[in-house]
Amino acid sequence: MKKIRVGIVGYGNLGKSVEKQVRMRDDFRLVGIFSRRQVSSFFSTPCYKFEDIEKFNRKIDVMILCLGSKSDIENFAFDIAKHFNTIDSFDNHTHISVYQTKLAAQNKKNKKCSIISCGWDPGLFSLMRAQFVSICGEQQTFWGKGVSQGHSQALRELDEVDDAVEFTIPSKQAIKSALLGNAIAEKSKHMRQCYVAAKQGQNKRKLRKKICNIPDYFEGYKTKVIFCSKQKIEKLKQHMFHKGFVTTPKKQMFFELNLDSNPDFTAKVMVSYCVALSKLCKNKEYGAKTILDIPPSYLFFEQDYVHLI
Amino acid sequence: MKKIRVGIVGYGNLGKSVEKQVRMRDDFRLVGIFSRRQVSSFFSTPCYKFEDIEKFNRKIDVMILCLGSKSDIENFAFDIAKHFNTIDSFDNHTHISVYQTKLAAQNKKNKKCSIISCGWDPGLFSLMRAQFVSICGEQQTFWGKGVSQGHSQALRELDEVDDAVEFTIPSKQAIKSALLGNAIAEKSKHMRQCYVAAKQGQNKRKLRKKICNIPDYFEGYKTKVIFCSKQKIEKLKQHMFHKGFVTTPKKQMFFELNLDSNPDFTAKVMVSYCVALSKLCKNKEYGAKTILDIPPSYLFFEQDYVHLI
Repeated sequence: MKKIRVGIVGYGNLGKSVEKQVRMRDDFRLVGIFSRRQVSSFFSTPCYKFEDIEKFNRKIDVMILCLGSKSDIENFAFDIAKHFNTIDSFDNHTHISVYQTKLAAQNKKNKKCSIISCGWDPGLFSLMRAQFVSICGEQQTFWGKGVSQGHSQALRELDEVDDAVEFTIPSKQAIKSALLGNAIAEKSKHMRQCYVAAKQGQNKRKLRKKICNIPDYFEGYKTKVIFCSKQKIEKLKQHMFHKGFVTTPKKQMFFELNLDSNPDFTAKVMVSYCVALSKLCKNKEYGAKTILDIPPSYLFFEQDYVHLI
Repeated sequence: MKKIRVGIVGYGNLGKSVEKQVRMRDDFRLVGIFSRRQVSSFFSTPCYKFEDIEKFNRKIDVMILCLGSKSDIENFAFDIAKHFNTIDSFDNHTHISVYQTKLAAQNKKNKKCSIISCGWDPGLFSLMRAQFVSICGEQQTFWGKGVSQGHSQALRELDEVDDAVEFTIPSKQAIKSALLGNAIAEKSKHMRQCYVAAKQGQNKRKLRKKICNIPDYFEGYKTKVIFCSKQKIEKLKQHMFHKGFVTTPKKQMFFELNLDSNPDFTAKVMVSYCVALSKLCKNKEYGAKTILDIPPSYLFFEQDYVHLI
């Protein structure tokens, strides 16, 4: 069997996790890591400058984008997708639809395939919500307690911030109410606990207000901003656990994830959907798809899934 | 929006549940029930003789097959699919692949679409197993306690049996072991408890042995056969609850169903996949598909799923 040749763009938490996952699979070959920063790989994977990425366009089947969602993916994905089939975990829910439409149009022109928003949420949880709503007419999703990479990244991208971590914490009362079948306002289901190391000389009151008003990520949520040292953030960052569930009333349908490492699991989902991406390419199904657009059988080479039916 | 015009073949537990579900949806129109027996509908749905089914081939978009899997579906589905797009919940796991291949070949010739083995297992649980194995490399499935319609039907189809119900019961020890990540022999995970009303004059020892040796359904399982009266079976049949789960070690990925009524829920899954079937027809994707072959977005008319991503 021909191995899937992959490249990784970005070498933060997610990039490192993807590297680890790809190296564990003998149906993949990791060609290189591309970064705007000077990086060196823990596993001695060749690292290249992002500017040189185009030179690899015949050597890489799938480019795995491990960039921060808040702006990086929207900024870079279109350029990268001109030359490569891409997969990303773009997690800004309210922007997914526009991003998908634009990328699909470009990809159809360039005969490229992309899978977007492919992680656990958006991703697996989206799949569950679709199934649950289609079958039972309703669903509720809860996240945490755990670090949200998307929300943490959104904090880190602020000019005033040195480093930050966000913990999403579900409301016990809201969970109880959801299982009884009550409607709950989306933004009252979770608290957002932000640990922030501000740059020197920042007005903390102003910064707190700015954070609480970041649309999509914090605006309208019960958001707690705790200022602390960079050292404390470094320590908190080591907590990679996360969990969450999608449910219908009385757990008639219930899907749960319990993750030791959020980036490791997101990486696993992305790597497993690389198989689907290679199938889309083979079938010339050009465009930009989410997990919802892909038959689950595409996750397997040949007929390897038949015994699971 | 044009309503999906459906017919129901078979009016046992599942047929009755499908009737109830279809009548609750305003995007469906129930044209009639077809049965080999003289039946009358609880909801005054028109009932027709099975022999007259062909006359409806321009009046029905989707025929929902609510027949017993053990032999009925394999016997009748091919004839019905000559004239109609069909959906069924064929649950004999070891025969699915052959059934799918044969029906797909016939459907491609006749320009028909079928969705097969569409319930919770096979069906939703198949989808979870595929996801779990693709992402985590492994999965374990447990069922019960609850009545298995497929297994009960397999008992009822025996000449020696008047009526019967089978309860599937998971082994607590096996569950514990699975959550620790140990491999477990498939047939040691559950006990099969069969309540059987034998016809008069049957040799019970011989019948018990015959039941325990029914391939796929009971052979190799810890099977307990309890002989009792038809009245007791009638009472037991009122218990429609069922449950089950698919998991990876330590519940990293975990999917659970808790069903008050097994046939009602199977009916919900089938009815929701009727939307996918109508989409397959519209796209001229002729053949026979399982849930694994269908993009989850097909469960929705138009773009009604976008907010769930």
